[in-house]
Amino acid sequence: MASGKPAIGFVGLGAMGFGMATNLVRQGYPVKGYDVFPASVERFKGAGGIPAASLKESAEGNPYYVCMVASAPQVQEVLFNEQTGIINVLPKNSTFLLCSTVPSAYAQSVEKELKARGRDDIFFIDSPVSGGASRAADGTLSIMAGGSDAALENGKLILQEMSDPKKLYLVPGGIGAGSNMKMVHQVLAAIHILGASEAMGLAARLGLEAHTAADAIIKSDAWTWMHENRLNRMLEEDWNPGASALTIILKDVGIITSTARLQKFPTPLSSTAEQVYLTGLVYGWGPKDDSAMVRMYTSEPIIKVNSTLSPEETSRRLRMVTKLMQYTNIVAAAEAVAFARHLNVDMTQFYDLVINAAGGSKMFNTLGATMIKGIPIGVAATGDLTVDDIVKELSDIVQEARDLYTPLNLATAALNQYLVAQRRGWGKEAATSIIRAWEI
Amino acid sequence: MASGKPAIGFVGLGAMGFGMATNLVRQGYPVKGYDVFPASVERFKGAGGIPAASLKESAEGNPYYVCMVASAPQVQEVLFNEQTGIINVLPKNSTFLLCSTVPSAYAQSVEKELKARGRDDIFFIDSPVSGGASRAADGTLSIMAGGSDAALENGKLILQEMSDPKKLYLVPGGIGAGSNMKMVHQVLAAIHILGASEAMGLAARLGLEAHTAADAIIKSDAWTWMHENRLNRMLEEDWNPGASALTIILKDVGIITSTARLQKFPTPLSSTAEQVYLTGLVYGWGPKDDSAMVRMYTSEPIIKVNSTLSPEETSRRLRMVTKLMQYTNIVAAAEAVAFARHLNVDMTQFYDLVINAAGGSKMFNTLGATMIKGIPIGVAATGDLTVDDIVKELSDIVQEARDLYTPLNLATAALNQYLVAQRRGWGKEAATSIIRAWEI
Repeated sequence: MASGKPAIGFVGLGAMGFGMATNLVRQGYPVKGYDVFPASVERFKGAGGIPAASLKESAEGNPYYVCMVASAPQVQEVLFNEQTGIINVLPKNSTFLLCSTVPSAYAQSVEKELKARGRDDIFFIDSPVSGGASRAADGTLSIMAGGSDAALENGKLILQEMSDPKKLYLVPGGIGAGSNMKMVHQVLAAIHILGASEAMGLAARLGLEAHTAADAIIKSDAWTWMHENRLNRMLEEDWNPGASALTIILKDVGIITSTARLQKFPTPLSSTAEQVYLTGLVYGWGPKDDSAMVRMYTSEPIIKVNSTLSPEETSRRLRMVTKLMQYTNIVAAAEAVAFARHLNVDMTQFYDLVINAAGGSKMFNTLGATMIKGIPIGVAATGDLTVDDIVKELSDIVQEARDLYTPLNLATAALNQYLVAQRRGWGKEAATSIIRAWEI
Repeated sequence: MASGKPAIGFVGLGAMGFGMATNLVRQGYPVKGYDVFPASVERFKGAGGIPAASLKESAEGNPYYVCMVASAPQVQEVLFNEQTGIINVLPKNSTFLLCSTVPSAYAQSVEKELKARGRDDIFFIDSPVSGGASRAADGTLSIMAGGSDAALENGKLILQEMSDPKKLYLVPGGIGAGSNMKMVHQVLAAIHILGASEAMGLAARLGLEAHTAADAIIKSDAWTWMHENRLNRMLEEDWNPGASALTIILKDVGIITSTARLQKFPTPLSSTAEQVYLTGLVYGWGPKDDSAMVRMYTSEPIIKVNSTLSPEETSRRLRMVTKLMQYTNIVAAAEAVAFARHLNVDMTQFYDLVINAAGGSKMFNTLGATMIKGIPIGVAATGDLTVDDIVKELSDIVQEARDLYTPLNLATAALNQYLVAQRRGWGKEAATSIIRAWEI
């Protein structure tokens, strides 16, 4: 190796994987890449990569291996297929980085199967990534890596090449911990993606001009990273093909709800979002951008709305939209924090990850921090928003939206959580106490 | 009056009202009918009714008045419109039967407004009906009538003419009690209508032949009146126009959720059903039969499925469908019983009404009875289905459906309730203990 840098095998040269692999090439690593699509391998060759003629060939002799295929069943094939799998080809004491997003239970099953097949010499790291194709290509991803200390020590070099130095999280808890960390982040992502559509759809049904509504949301306590990110695609209906297809968030939310079921943990908002995404899929919207979900709420392009409202009425209705979204986001924050805590996720890392990534929201960043610190039980401080306050205002908003026949999947599920909290006697407590509904 | 029977004014000659009014004509009453559609008045005249040239004319001089318009805003116009309303035309001490389905809070507002306008001489009865157009025409409706003892005494004659003798419920509690009784019945109706679509949609996605699945449901613990009633329309896609339009159940479920919000009472399953109905409305399905909702779950007609499954696999999948529906129906029963109890509805009447009407289900009829009697707290009796049992089986079913990308709005909302019950420590208790999730 002229560069002196170790050789890396790589499988999965899709949008993310191609960027990750070519970044490693640019950093001077010999990278031998494989993909089921020969055209992707050719493209990788054109970018300076070493093409592998087979999956096995991509693994042979390389001390590192990065797996960036799309799903757990694909990972299973890559590693363990009797004919084509790499389990018996990976060199002794090599390091295997599983960067695909998979359920933590699946990552743990890989660890067990490696051992059962006599390959616990492999340093295995559970290290899903986040940040999109351009950060993949820049080597500035967020990475959440879990594994044994020895494995993390061995893999650190490659993890650092792929990530932003501030966004490489070495997650305590061993295999599964990285996947869990990504998953609890995706709780917020999955809810906020639909929430952006729900809020913008409601705004359109209320006769609010789309840019006006979007600006109000961005400047308010309703802000989410996802809303701001998806906004242009939603306004321009730029969703064929999708920059982030409905099927992708559907895969992620499926990991959340399936893990929640294994954990016997309720995730009412994630589950509500999943059902709406599945309905979109039945209508054939799978390949569309996930911002196309706005059309679940309104049958016309939101950009077509020309407001005829008075300034006073505009202001009142903008408040309806932002408050609805804000109060929903509090419940989203509670669901994510409660689930993270249930899974023994490192809460400091979790918070730091979210506020710098796609799951961020004004409510998570502020009230989420309070929820993580622990909620003081008892009557809210003067000036604090209480559960009773929210029930009152949110009920009125939901009713007015209902009079316009607007679906509000998330907001009604959120209101239900507030009502349960109220019935359990927490009405006079701060809104953050909603998290207790998830606790025992 | 040759017949010796008292004269009746009548407004609202739609599908239900026309049947009710012509039944009264056939019983020998002089009935003066009005409708905003002149063609309906003409048709009523053809059936022996007395046409009224105006709303006011329909009321003048008649000791009884029946109002069967579609909604609370229409009732408000009928009674209180400054120009055309009948408030000052109704004879002194006449009896006004409000048979429209309205929120109980609205019925109570009518009582107040009559008093405020100096018309508390009117014997006012809050008496919504149920049973469909053919029973309306036969005079065998279910009627839930509330009001003062004097009003009920005065109105009984007419109520009896319109109802099946066994299905006339004189509901204690005054004005609003009749509307509440109908509403808590509709909790079951609204959930079971969507539940029929969800179960048949899942069956199709599982590759089960539609008639086979329907027969299994009807013979099992999953039976609901609504599934059996909607089945043929669903199989034949006979839903343009709808025998029971989506907009009708949407109105009813809106009364449930708006009343629940006023009461600060959570209704997660009704609310979930409402959101799915609203999504159907966005797609323009409002005038279709509500059984068209099955197409939210599968993109092809369910009748087109030709099973290629082995007998064993058929049997396993039929069990998935029936158990999913049964476990959802237990939560539906709990939501209805809990809400009825919260509203101080007479529980004996409520049970009797439901089991003989469209809200009936095997689970309500059996476990609902236990819930009404009161749940013994503590470990379930041997052989009883526990919350833990249901979480285990329902989680597996939901996961398998998810692997097929089938939405399951109600079942996942129901599973959430079971998970909450489990987390609250009721896992070893009988399934009926799920009702405690609604209690304080």
